[in-house]
Amino acid sequence: MSLGEFDIIARYFTRRSARSDVALGVGDDAAILDVAPGRKLVAAVDTIVEGVHFPVGTAAADIGYRALAVNLSDLAAMGAEPTWMLLSLSLPTADSRWLEDFARGLFEIADTHNVALVGGDTVRGPLVITVSLLGFVEADRWLTRAGAQPGDVLFVSGCVGEAAAGLALVQQSCGTDAPAAHLRERFLRPTPRVALGRALRTVASAAMDVSDGLIVDVSKLCAASGCGARLEVERLPPSLAAQTHFAPERCLDYALSGGDDYELIFTVPEATAMNLPASVLAAGVSTAIGIITAGSGVECVRNGQRFVPRASGYDHFGRKVAP
Amino acid sequence: MSLGEFDIIARYFTRRSARSDVALGVGDDAAILDVAPGRKLVAAVDTIVEGVHFPVGTAAADIGYRALAVNLSDLAAMGAEPTWMLLSLSLPTADSRWLEDFARGLFEIADTHNVALVGGDTVRGPLVITVSLLGFVEADRWLTRAGAQPGDVLFVSGCVGEAAAGLALVQQSCGTDAPAAHLRERFLRPTPRVALGRALRTVASAAMDVSDGLIVDVSKLCAASGCGARLEVERLPPSLAAQTHFAPERCLDYALSGGDDYELIFTVPEATAMNLPASVLAAGVSTAIGIITAGSGVECVRNGQRFVPRASGYDHFGRKVAP
Repeated sequence: MSLGEFDIIARYFTRRSARSDVALGVGDDAAILDVAPGRKLVAAVDTIVEGVHFPVGTAAADIGYRALAVNLSDLAAMGAEPTWMLLSLSLPTADSRWLEDFARGLFEIADTHNVALVGGDTVRGPLVITVSLLGFVEADRWLTRAGAQPGDVLFVSGCVGEAAAGLALVQQSCGTDAPAAHLRERFLRPTPRVALGRALRTVASAAMDVSDGLIVDVSKLCAASGCGARLEVERLPPSLAAQTHFAPERCLDYALSGGDDYELIFTVPEATAMNLPASVLAAGVSTAIGIITAGSGVECVRNGQRFVPRASGYDHFGRKVAP
Repeated sequence: MSLGEFDIIARYFTRRSARSDVALGVGDDAAILDVAPGRKLVAAVDTIVEGVHFPVGTAAADIGYRALAVNLSDLAAMGAEPTWMLLSLSLPTADSRWLEDFARGLFEIADTHNVALVGGDTVRGPLVITVSLLGFVEADRWLTRAGAQPGDVLFVSGCVGEAAAGLALVQQSCGTDAPAAHLRERFLRPTPRVALGRALRTVASAAMDVSDGLIVDVSKLCAASGCGARLEVERLPPSLAAQTHFAPERCLDYALSGGDDYELIFTVPEATAMNLPASVLAAGVSTAIGIITAGSGVECVRNGQRFVPRASGYDHFGRKVAP
């Protein structure tokens, strides 16, 4: 029996714990844990595998950068401030040049976010990198996937679909112009929206990061919140870079179903949506792309007409993910 | 250029961090982190790889058990009480029977130690399992590798070498008697010495766990403490089970150089050694096997004569580890 990735954690590894110090356990972007009055510990783990999350031959510095970036995105989605990481490195061989480059990429983004590497494990094996990231959030309010209410406005940060376009260019080894370089960079070195997550902490009713594709991840946010969403496709911010290299419908596929963007989706009450605080605006462009509904699932509309996307999102174990 | 495992973390990933909340970073069994007055957060990560840390075909329940056990041993070596874990699972396929068995083994030992699984990541890839374990230790005194003093007595818990003997039996698919079953269990389901670590917290001058082999790990403790050790080989507790299946010299090889035991080595001042507290005695058998010296490195003696072991310990990247 083959299972989808989204079932595995829920089915086999979600249990009600006897511990009372787990404020939020398995199932969101990160766990929220009691450590001290006034603040909570936030913990997330992400693994990247050669040939699955990055193509064979990807530069070691980009792999190092990415290994932490995807975890920072998880903490961003909780509104947390990252502090410390643990690194596990499974390597086929111990090549000093590769290790130097990997460490340079890892510490480049670690320094940007003031994250200290505090422990690690190095083993011989296939190229698999796991980063566990810890951080803190104020105890009175953190972000989860579960708080969206019908009528809330759905936003997305940045420009989704560019990472998938960048991956396509990497895989095809094509494109030497500036837009192609931009798209590749968007895939290889995603920008975790940590400052935005911090700013949204007291504003958003729900948030999560977009790693498996916009529709799939909006679906997950809706499922966690017990609601649905209507996504107005024409509102998605266009990627000029992607349009340089791909046909419009392909760009739309990438935006709706491509993974690896590590942007944030978030919902805010309608009154707030018209008047986002300066801290949110200062943290980068976010765009209203739809509305939360009382139903379930994600309905796409395009210029007022129901629209069925051509593709869904990414599931590691290949089960079709309903849009 | 090929590097030994022990060099990789030190050379590429040890940096003085700008963060003042890291009480102890890379280089010990776990990190010690400031989270609240009166107690410290303790964090460790360990990865196990199919074909490297356990043979292909190992029962999923044993893999799950072991994945957490090896991390619990790291926290034991710090004197910490474990609380929460993150699980990263890279799997070639999502087989429900395998996952059920894996989860059963994992939660069996998690429940024994009251550890809650609070987050995870599941990806498609080779069979690689990473557990990150968090816990707490009182802020006034935790165990490290670095506090041993010349004249301190060196102890080891339990009976080292049994895990290596058990692995040999697993690899040779032989032995159906009770001693063989005991040895296999010692390899497949190591017993982390968490209660002993807690008891040693205010008693031991230094501690670490034995994962790569007794001599190698005593060497590491000595290097961290800036001292040497004289190990009296004939004092090692004999394994009756190992002696049933292996010649005496082979048993000694396993005891001195076999890995995977996950016992604790620790040092205590001479006065304390003669009069270990009841809490330490209650946490299982520990044996005095040598003495800390003012020199460097580990000298083995056997019935008063200098003794050179036939093998050293385990290094993932194959560099010879000097005994």
